[in-house]
Amino acid sequence: MSSSVSRPSGRRHDQLREVRITRQYTKHAEGSVLIEFGDTKVICTASISERVPEFLRDRGQGWLTAEYGMLPRATHTRSDREAARGKQTGRTQEIQRLIGRALRAVFDLEKLGSRTLHIDCDVIQADGGTRTASITGAFVAAHDAVERLLSSGKIQESPITDFVAAISVGMHEGDALLDLDYAEDSQCDTDMNVVMTGSGGLVEVQGTAEGEPFSRDEMDGLLDLAQNGIHELIRMQRKALERLYS
Amino acid sequence: MSSSVSRPSGRRHDQLREVRITRQYTKHAEGSVLIEFGDTKVICTASISERVPEFLRDRGQGWLTAEYGMLPRATHTRSDREAARGKQTGRTQEIQRLIGRALRAVFDLEKLGSRTLHIDCDVIQADGGTRTASITGAFVAAHDAVERLLSSGKIQESPITDFVAAISVGMHEGDALLDLDYAEDSQCDTDMNVVMTGSGGLVEVQGTAEGEPFSRDEMDGLLDLAQNGIHELIRMQRKALERLYS
Amino acid sequence: MSSSVSRPSGRRHDQLREVRITRQYTKHAEGSVLIEFGDTKVICTASISERVPEFLRDRGQGWLTAEYGMLPRATHTRSDREAARGKQTGRTQEIQRLIGRALRAVFDLEKLGSRTLHIDCDVIQADGGTRTASITGAFVAAHDAVERLLSSGKIQESPITDFVAAISVGMHEGDALLDLDYAEDSQCDTDMNVVMTGSGGLVEVQGTAEGEPFSRDEMDGLLDLAQNGIHELIRMQRKALERLYS
Amino acid sequence: MSSSVSRPSGRRHDQLREVRITRQYTKHAEGSVLIEFGDTKVICTASISERVPEFLRDRGQGWLTAEYGMLPRATHTRSDREAARGKQTGRTQEIQRLIGRALRAVFDLEKLGSRTLHIDCDVIQADGGTRTASITGAFVAAHDAVERLLSSGKIQESPITDFVAAISVGMHEGDALLDLDYAEDSQCDTDMNVVMTGSGGLVEVQGTAEGEPFSRDEMDGLLDLAQNGIHELIRMQRKALERLYS
Amino acid sequence: MSSSVSRPSGRRHDQLREVRITRQYTKHAEGSVLIEFGDTKVICTASISERVPEFLRDRGQGWLTAEYGMLPRATHTRSDREAARGKQTGRTQEIQRLIGRALRAVFDLEKLGSRTLHIDCDVIQADGGTRTASITGAFVAAHDAVERLLSSGKIQESPITDFVAAISVGMHEGDALLDLDYAEDSQCDTDMNVVMTGSGGLVEVQGTAEGEPFSRDEMDGLLDLAQNGIHELIRMQRKALERLYS
Amino acid sequence: MSSSVSRPSGRRHDQLREVRITRQYTKHAEGSVLIEFGDTKVICTASISERVPEFLRDRGQGWLTAEYGMLPRATHTRSDREAARGKQTGRTQEIQRLIGRALRAVFDLEKLGSRTLHIDCDVIQADGGTRTASITGAFVAAHDAVERLLSSGKIQESPITDFVAAISVGMHEGDALLDLDYAEDSQCDTDMNVVMTGSGGLVEVQGTAEGEPFSRDEMDGLLDLAQNGIHELIRMQRKALERLYS
Repeated sequence: MSSSVSRPSGRRHDQLREVRITRQYTKHAEGSVLIEFGDTKVICTASISERVPEFLRDRGQGWLTAEYGMLPRATHTRSDREAARGKQTGRTQEIQRLIGRALRAVFDLEKLGSRTLHIDCDVIQADGGTRTASITGAFVAAHDAVERLLSSGKIQESPITDFVAAISVGMHEGDALLDLDYAEDSQCDTDMNVVMTGSGGLVEVQGTAEGEPFSRDEMDGLLDLAQNGIHELIRMQRKALERLYS
Repeated sequence: MSSSVSRPSGRRHDQLREVRITRQYTKHAEGSVLIEFGDTKVICTASISERVPEFLRDRGQGWLTAEYGMLPRATHTRSDREAARGKQTGRTQEIQRLIGRALRAVFDLEKLGSRTLHIDCDVIQADGGTRTASITGAFVAAHDAVERLLSSGKIQESPITDFVAAISVGMHEGDALLDLDYAEDSQCDTDMNVVMTGSGGLVEVQGTAEGEPFSRDEMDGLLDLAQNGIHELIRMQRKALERLYS
Repeated sequence: MSSSVSRPSGRRHDQLREVRITRQYTKHAEGSVLIEFGDTKVICTASISERVPEFLRDRGQGWLTAEYGMLPRATHTRSDREAARGKQTGRTQEIQRLIGRALRAVFDLEKLGSRTLHIDCDVIQADGGTRTASITGAFVAAHDAVERLLSSGKIQESPITDFVAAISVGMHEGDALLDLDYAEDSQCDTDMNVVMTGSGGLVEVQGTAEGEPFSRDEMDGLLDLAQNGIHELIRMQRKALERLYS
Repeated sequence: MSSSVSRPSGRRHDQLREVRITRQYTKHAEGSVLIEFGDTKVICTASISERVPEFLRDRGQGWLTAEYGMLPRATHTRSDREAARGKQTGRTQEIQRLIGRALRAVFDLEKLGSRTLHIDCDVIQADGGTRTASITGAFVAAHDAVERLLSSGKIQESPITDFVAAISVGMHEGDALLDLDYAEDSQCDTDMNVVMTGSGGLVEVQGTAEGEPFSRDEMDGLLDLAQNGIHELIRMQRKALERLYS
Repeated sequence: MSSSVSRPSGRRHDQLREVRITRQYTKHAEGSVLIEFGDTKVICTASISERVPEFLRDRGQGWLTAEYGMLPRATHTRSDREAARGKQTGRTQEIQRLIGRALRAVFDLEKLGSRTLHIDCDVIQADGGTRTASITGAFVAAHDAVERLLSSGKIQESPITDFVAAISVGMHEGDALLDLDYAEDSQCDTDMNVVMTGSGGLVEVQGTAEGEPFSRDEMDGLLDLAQNGIHELIRMQRKALERLYS
Repeated sequence: MSSSVSRPSGRRHDQLREVRITRQYTKHAEGSVLIEFGDTKVICTASISERVPEFLRDRGQGWLTAEYGMLPRATHTRSDREAARGKQTGRTQEIQRLIGRALRAVFDLEKLGSRTLHIDCDVIQADGGTRTASITGAFVAAHDAVERLLSSGKIQESPITDFVAAISVGMHEGDALLDLDYAEDSQCDTDMNVVMTGSGGLVEVQGTAEGEPFSRDEMDGLLDLAQNGIHELIRMQRKALERLYS
């Protein structure tokens, strides 16, 4: 793992893009965050509804679910609008399922009470890493929505058990790179998305060989890189959550 | 029509909300504008594709089409995501058809050449007037996309024949109000959307009695108000388009 | 506005096509009307169901909703069957929303009681003006359905507060024309649909520039023409409703 | 098989309802027929398109296909509009496949040339037997469309090889009944639809036990009845086709 | 009807393919059968759910419904997966409606109690006759599911009133053939599916002329053949049901 | 990682279920395999079509794509049929995308020539691990289809570059378990699916914490277990492919 690797963006191999977390980005949602990983920009909202899905009726617990979308021209060339096509792509469904699982990993759904937290992650500009930015931003939005429940007295105790954030890593010509942007993502042999909690537990590891298969050693290098990146992201989440309440 | 009417926002009856037009809001689209009418915020992009729809094949002219969407939590309470439901609502289709007609009214599609301009208007925060903000912002985005075609030499002459903008007006307890926000919109007896060109020609007038029917006199008052509002919006479009090229 | 304009049909500029209203056209519906505006023929039925949509549950009021369709070969060339394509076009949705709003403008939904009036307008032959014929015929069908409710004692007082009818007008080479047929409609610069009540209140005005934008003066001329046409249509509705009960 | 059976309509057991065939019912279609079997009323149109479906491309033969629909309030209680539900029911698909097969049985598709005949059968009032009325009327509409092709010189020889018509028969408390209306249809133990050519060949026999299974003897009685009914229907088709051309 | 006809498979004209019925083919379903008609192989399962559809709510009776599918490569060339296309073909719907009607003909739905029996017939290899094999196998699966209800005490009396099975017959160059395989099916002029009960009652007869229409005599010959075939199939069902319980 | 763990099935913690690979399971597909991982049974077919999707047109390379489905009663309780619901679930789409990526990792698509290999994996009985059984069986089916292309001379060189197989592993109360069955899967804290090539390269690693997050150490233990399991599966693939050709 060389530190002398040259990246299109001039970043070090273990360097995140500039990350910005803007809370209260839109006014209606109980939690609303604009998260930016460099040129990737995602609006994450958390909405509370006082109902649970059918399969949880009368179970005395809540639910958290996530949806994901991209504006048609968030990308280099315009993609079809999913609402106009009449269905979500497999990629979209895969990502929104991932976001939901990641957030539920740090939620005690019984403490949430009999209500649903709807996470919406909408990409307004894409430059790689939209799913990891979504998870990282959605946590902050969910946290704000929970604060709202606490301050209004609807719940007494926070259902949030830990922080959670996500980052992508990839192998490019033998180098492990942190937080791939679009240019890198399309050239990497291996692309891995890692979701981790504040206390360092792994929630999700999804590694895919786009070209050559990868070795256990490479995988270890990627996971080391990801862990450091996630620690840094969680520091930023913490900082973002301090502001405004201090 | 009294000027002493009191509006929730404190605006005069003939006063627009604060309007902001931010060009180059996202980086991929040929034209990309964030337009704000007070708390209503819409991302308008214009994307060029070098194809025309089937019904125009080999006609030697271009096409302009528009799509509209709202983020699920752009509104007070979360709405279902249209992509997840698998279809667009009637309201969405009505609005996107209106945006397309409004823009085509100031486009000479033969001068556009055999290509399509895709307008996407995505509401990230809604507070009334999303369709009029969409039209007003989409014109600026379309203008930027046309500049791109001109500067790259793909076309020699601009297909844009005039400015176009839109505003809503409404009757509320006998008063005609300009640029309704959500609180006003839901209380008005009559709601009218007006689309007008820079030279003052009417492109679209859609007046609807939500409660009591309206008289010809009331309609005249509303149209006067709308005309003034649109003149002002077009001054802002002009100003926004000057910036950056001066 | 010259009266010397020559129309393909030989009509005067302010002359309606021959209008025929046939009540009890089909036997099952509570109200069933065949309305003909010249060669445009629409079957309008009004069906009563003793339920209300979810959003009105337990509100003690009724609902009126409308659907619109065209037989595939109602038009010059066959169109795809919407049921086979699996979705309604934007145009269809726009029209059925308009019909619903127009009828609700003359309905006191609380007096309707906790039930729904379903309006179905199905075009069996199209020659321009299908939406205005639909509204005009649907009113008569709805009236018959209400009579059924009154005579069966389900309601004591009619929820109908006024008559309502609709007509199209258009600008063609400087002339304002009443009740456009297909040949005229496709050549007009401006096309306007007007919905008005028996007492002369405007319910809906939808003017669209197909070619050149229109001026306020032209709009005034069109509205004058439309008002006269609608007065005449309402006389016919009145007459049609007298027959059979006298 | 007793002739003393009493039917709700007062018909003899072997008596058709009053059948009316109105040609040129609507003006745009190449063939357009209103067929009435008593209170069952179906608009059958035949539309010519100068294309063939993909699977027949470059095969030098034509195609005939059929679609079927019912107006929502053609029936006693309103059914959902298939276009609004977004899909056709299994019943609709079954019927339209049957109509297509029945008509194709008397068409020489090579003589039709490389074009498609679209049959549309739309029920405006239903009282049992909509599929058999549809087939019987569609044949006349198809015949008119073929005349149009012949008279315009597009084809030299008629692709129609025989007449075709259809009727329903049923067993009711031991009696075989011809041409069931809705009241009878819902009480019959066995319901059979028979499609037959002018020369007496069977094209389709679909017998279904709704209640008790049926015997071979009963089946024979039903087929005898159906054959006589179809002979009569074909006489009426012949007569309808004479009119107007004499 | 000659017995000297030569069939591709070498079978006599009145000979079934080898039929195999394997009970308890998969482990979860209350009834699960693999039925083979020669190379046609269908998995038939019967699943009990303790609910009834909306239209039967509170009627004190049960329901039986069937669904049918084919693996994409059950056929000579791969067909599109219906789940991926987003809808079932007309053929699929026709077949599953047929299976449901056939089974319901031998079920006393009141004795089933307020529950639903879901029949699923999934073709894993197709060589003609998939619908008749489905019905024949589904009966055995349904029987096993009913046994489960009886042995668990949920019902005291079997709702099954008779056996039911189905077979196809066809006319090929003047010969009547029993149990058509795919090669024969595609060459036959007439194709008929017959559903019959153990006591010899006809439940469904569906005869279709693919090429030339058929005569009453031919129809009689086909029915004779079918009846013998079904007797044989019912003997096999009986035998299959004996095994395992003896 | 204790070897003394007790599993519901009595297996050792590092023991696969009994695996059976049956080639030529159905007769039409170019490759057709029934793979069984204990009670999990999946039919995997490989179908060759001489076309490529639009996005690869004229690129001189082939494509491999996969679809996945489950019979409605493959599971403990019946699930809705996706074809009847009109769409595939997110889970289905996720799995079929995974199968496609896994197979493409060992395919040189240029050597495949301008054709598509369609993989269909249909679960006829589910007991955990359906996606890993699918990948493992699909490889064998794909191999057989490639043999067909080679033996018919359509390609000269095999596009297959390596073996590929997949297995699930999971953490259950501190123990790492190989090849989870349904009972185990629903109790595990962590569930990981691993796809690996014959030469030991990792193609896909998907680890998910269902309950508690997992540590790097646990992940290492799971990967060790998976690697051994996959080596064993690949030995079985090898053996299955030897049979029949020796």
